Amino acid sequence: MSRKEFRTLADPEDVRKTIASLSLASGTEYVGLETAHGRVLAERIAADIDVPGFDRASMDGYAVRAHDTIEATEVEPAVLDLVGAVHAGEKPEVTVEAGTCVEISTGAVMPEGSDAVIVVEQTDETESADGEPRIECRSTVTPSENVMLAGADIAAGMRALGAGTRLTPREIGLLSAVGCESLPVVKPPRVGIISTGEELVRPGEPLESQRGEIYDVNSHTIAAGVEAAGGESVVYPHAGDDFEEMERLLRQAANECDLVVSSGSTSASAVDVIYRVIEDRGELLVHGVAVKPGKPMLVGRLERSDGDHSAYIGLPGYPVSALTIFRTFVAPAIRQAAGRPEPATASLTGEMATEARSEAGRLRLLSVGVFEDSEGRQLVYPVDKGSGATMTLAEADGIVRIEPNTDYLSAGETVTVELFSPAVRPPELLGIGEDDPALSVLVDQVGSTRYLPMGSREGLRRLRNGLPDFAVVAGPGDRPEQTVSLGGWHREWGLIVPEGNPDGIETLGHLVDREVRFVNRETTSGLRSSLSNSLTALAETRGVSRHSLVAAIDGFDTTVKAFESPARRVLEERADVGLGLKTTADKHGLEFVSLGDQRVELLVNPNRREKPAVDRLQAVFETLSELCPSLSGYRFAGE
Amino acid sequence: MSRKEFRTLADPEDVRKTIASLSLASGTEYVGLETAHGRVLAERIAADIDVPGFDRASMDGYAVRAHDTIEATEVEPAVLDLVGAVHAGEKPEVTVEAGTCVEISTGAVMPEGSDAVIVVEQTDETESADGEPRIECRSTVTPSENVMLAGADIAAGMRALGAGTRLTPREIGLLSAVGCESLPVVKPPRVGIISTGEELVRPGEPLESQRGEIYDVNSHTIAAGVEAAGGESVVYPHAGDDFEEMERLLRQAANECDLVVSSGSTSASAVDVIYRVIEDRGELLVHGVAVKPGKPMLVGRLERSDGDHSAYIGLPGYPVSALTIFRTFVAPAIRQAAGRPEPATASLTGEMATEARSEAGRLRLLSVGVFEDSEGRQLVYPVDKGSGATMTLAEADGIVRIEPNTDYLSAGETVTVELFSPAVRPPELLGIGEDDPALSVLVDQVGSTRYLPMGSREGLRRLRNGLPDFAVVAGPGDRPEQTVSLGGWHREWGLIVPEGNPDGIETLGHLVDREVRFVNRETTSGLRSSLSNSLTALAETRGVSRHSLVAAIDGFDTTVKAFESPARRVLEERADVGLGLKTTADKHGLEFVSLGDQRVELLVNPNRREKPAVDRLQAVFETLSELCPSLSGYRFAGE
Repeated sequence: MSRKEFRTLADPEDVRKTIASLSLASGTEYVGLETAHGRVLAERIAADIDVPGFDRASMDGYAVRAHDTIEATEVEPAVLDLVGAVHAGEKPEVTVEAGTCVEISTGAVMPEGSDAVIVVEQTDETESADGEPRIECRSTVTPSENVMLAGADIAAGMRALGAGTRLTPREIGLLSAVGCESLPVVKPPRVGIISTGEELVRPGEPLESQRGEIYDVNSHTIAAGVEAAGGESVVYPHAGDDFEEMERLLRQAANECDLVVSSGSTSASAVDVIYRVIEDRGELLVHGVAVKPGKPMLVGRLERSDGDHSAYIGLPGYPVSALTIFRTFVAPAIRQAAGRPEPATASLTGEMATEARSEAGRLRLLSVGVFEDSEGRQLVYPVDKGSGATMTLAEADGIVRIEPNTDYLSAGETVTVELFSPAVRPPELLGIGEDDPALSVLVDQVGSTRYLPMGSREGLRRLRNGLPDFAVVAGPGDRPEQTVSLGGWHREWGLIVPEGNPDGIETLGHLVDREVRFVNRETTSGLRSSLSNSLTALAETRGVSRHSLVAAIDGFDTTVKAFESPARRVLEERADVGLGLKTTADKHGLEFVSLGDQRVELLVNPNRREKPAVDRLQAVFETLSELCPSLSGYRFAGE
Repeated sequence: MSRKEFRTLADPEDVRKTIASLSLASGTEYVGLETAHGRVLAERIAADIDVPGFDRASMDGYAVRAHDTIEATEVEPAVLDLVGAVHAGEKPEVTVEAGTCVEISTGAVMPEGSDAVIVVEQTDETESADGEPRIECRSTVTPSENVMLAGADIAAGMRALGAGTRLTPREIGLLSAVGCESLPVVKPPRVGIISTGEELVRPGEPLESQRGEIYDVNSHTIAAGVEAAGGESVVYPHAGDDFEEMERLLRQAANECDLVVSSGSTSASAVDVIYRVIEDRGELLVHGVAVKPGKPMLVGRLERSDGDHSAYIGLPGYPVSALTIFRTFVAPAIRQAAGRPEPATASLTGEMATEARSEAGRLRLLSVGVFEDSEGRQLVYPVDKGSGATMTLAEADGIVRIEPNTDYLSAGETVTVELFSPAVRPPELLGIGEDDPALSVLVDQVGSTRYLPMGSREGLRRLRNGLPDFAVVAGPGDRPEQTVSLGGWHREWGLIVPEGNPDGIETLGHLVDREVRFVNRETTSGLRSSLSNSLTALAETRGVSRHSLVAAIDGFDTTVKAFESPARRVLEERADVGLGLKTTADKHGLEFVSLGDQRVELLVNPNRREKPAVDRLQAVFETLSELCPSLSGYRFAGE
């Protein structure tokens, strides 16, 4: 068993510079105005025409020679012969001679001879002795009054927009005005994405778990990251560990793209294969970076059949590591090539809500979650679920850089959080505690809430430390005094057994006495606490030690993560009895042995009572009385 | 001549509520993960599968029974028979019995019988007496050590993402992990866009200016605004003032869209036609709003052939008014229907750099420009170029609301600027002054610069008042003492005449004495100042009044906007002589009568000397020495 060692790890800043030196630019392309929104101009645009292209009436009224109105007053109006009319979009067919006028609408071409518009409100219609129409002008007008001269808005030859301008609605408007239909814009860099690993299956295809298959997370995630940065993504098929196949794929991608991004499989052999292909068919510039996570990053170039090179970047395999490294090193280079500025919402400033430790010597990119306190401060807390955990993607909002010479961030310290993408919005509300189906509905309805189902014990512990806005606590145990309870509900808990109850489990004693495979919940869960209490009571009744009962239960230490998981094990016949809720048994068509009723309580952090989102939580909580009857074994308890 | 009067103008807040009450929602649609980036979930997504779906090795090493290593130490390692290997993506073919182990790679399925992984670094390879491979374990491992249990990352049944979640790369990652390929997302509201006006021509098509045609600005601008707000835009053909045609178009759009947005032509008759169609074929809810600009706004419903209704909003015709009203009243409703939150970058807080006045009684949506001072404060100044000016689109960044009871914003007051769209980025540098081709190149190269070519006189005046970062001043006149000059260049100016100089213009005297049509620049321009000085000198030489010379020049008061405009008039044979630059004459193949050489100077606001963008300006200015020789009649003057 051998693996590539990363002996000299590159400095992250040097890696950033190396990547910046690779050319990802894709050139210029022409697009029509109707698809130009959001694109970036590749060249300066000058106006080709005058806007307006003619002397244009800017009010409804009469086109006149200003000189004819020079002595007009309310008492002695100037009287002009009305010789015609001109509307917007019409070519004037009449000329305004001295002593005459022409009816004109806003936007119409000023007829020859006229040099001003008198607005309709300053005129009266009348007629001559022989019935010809005449207009009385009760006010004087000056030359050019109520007229926009040709080119007065935009003059031909003027610089309209510069290269590098992002085309938002207003620029589209300006380009429309000068009739510029075909626009030279920056062509987005094309980024090829290759995930490596024999075990990967594309989402949507069937998964063979017993073969160790898992869904490919990185391909679509990095593709979305490329698009968010202004690039165009091309997702290639997975590559296994075969040298020929990998070489063929990487060369194809290099020929078709400006940048090829692979994400390494977790197997060392695949990394070795990529390494060899890059060295054979290109140039390896960086191999290993002093950053955590992301040490095994590769940077290089790949030959193309046109004799040119594509840029190449190899990301780590674990999704959070891959996205973190992409966000930190790759996205800025794509934005640069796409002509996009660093988005204003790509980072935020917050305050550490808890401390965080790092190890010296390597840049740490710490995954963190963010939420707001009552004063609108952004609170930041570390999210570390282990390097293989994809749930970190949901529970963290971005990263905080901890420099190699720093090993500790204290609570209260100000930090910059680089969001996983500019569209990431930290939640307004953070809850921690018991996993519960009624609670899931609550969270759905409150909106903008992150709920971490870490169990009642963790919920209580973190609430005591002041982190979450609320905790959900089920089962026995003390409640801290300084919390505010919004109220709660009761749920029936017990043992879940297969349909027909083949082992005839009727009581907790049967679980102890019969030869059955049990599946338990984690010790942090309220369900587990209630089970423990019941076992203690049973031990007292029987006059034996609690330990002897626990030892007799096969699988007492087999714990699973979510409230439905034991029931699913029973359903899959991987266990005979599972700890769970009546509502879960009913949902999955399983049978249920009731062991009791436990209270679930919604506890609010007293320092967050003023948050508007906590008010929303309370309002939605009060509607649970309508939901509870639909969940079997549930009973709303109110406040 | 009659027009619809807006007798009772609706309150803007009531209009907002009326629009919010119209249903624009388009329902739910399913998209694949590869196109889901940026979309909004319409329903909660729960995990369907455990992740990982099997007990998974999280390190490279050997799968063992933890119990076998219970007494292992560095000195007395546990020795296990190596009975096979399992890699990621393989189904284990071996079972780990007591006393045996299996080589395992990260990501592989734990073989039956094993419950822990000992990492390769804590082992040594050896062999038995008969040459069979054996592994020495130098450390003890506990059950589940280096193993991620099935469902430990994500358990089947867990709530993964809530309805309303915007799909950024990390959510795409989470959905990939649980294999969720087809996603219920909010269907973007479909918005039909109809511009009305006989005079409108779509950009790209030929324009007949003499018929009063202008390019349609609103269709593509509003379409871009719809897309920025998360809607889907459908641009319909223009409608003229014909009732039947307008009715047919509006009904077609209503049948095909959730919302129909028209922008009124400036002609009163078209507004009347729309008004009648809405009243005949739907319901008019609002007619006229107490807001400036935007008074003639309409809100209503249009019947559809399925018996349902589409929402209808009529915007004013002038582009800045249309975009302002769209931004203020329509975009929020589209975002709401698209499930998009109000973007964080949709507004900014700034400080009025100058005062602004409004009229009482109506909400004023004041167009403003924004830029930063040396301390990073956002400075806000009004941009009011008249209601018909499309250049306001380039020169303003958004609007400031002035409430009806406020008639004055003082300099220094803090205001919120609502940007025309969230992607609008105010420039880093603001310059005002003379229009000049070398200056345009300078601005292109500095980047993120707004330059307002308002003429030398305006540049100086505003620089004295402290508004711009720099001013560009050409020709005679005093320079304020408190400015810093970065240096300048010289340009040759004079009279531009047609090829062959048919009128034989050789001197300024010829312009006065001959029967030619002249076209001048505005009084704020440095070219005009130089011409004036030369005329004064000529009058002195001739012993006549300057006024008599000016009066003899036909067209002395005919002024055009940009430095190329007089030359273009000569080119179009609309004038015989134009004021301009040698370089412009050369560019257009015209002849040139030199009247002198004027200095153009780059003056910097002393309070902005520390802005990084001013440093960039200076650096680029110094490269002008290379540009100047390519512009005929130009000479770089340095500092």
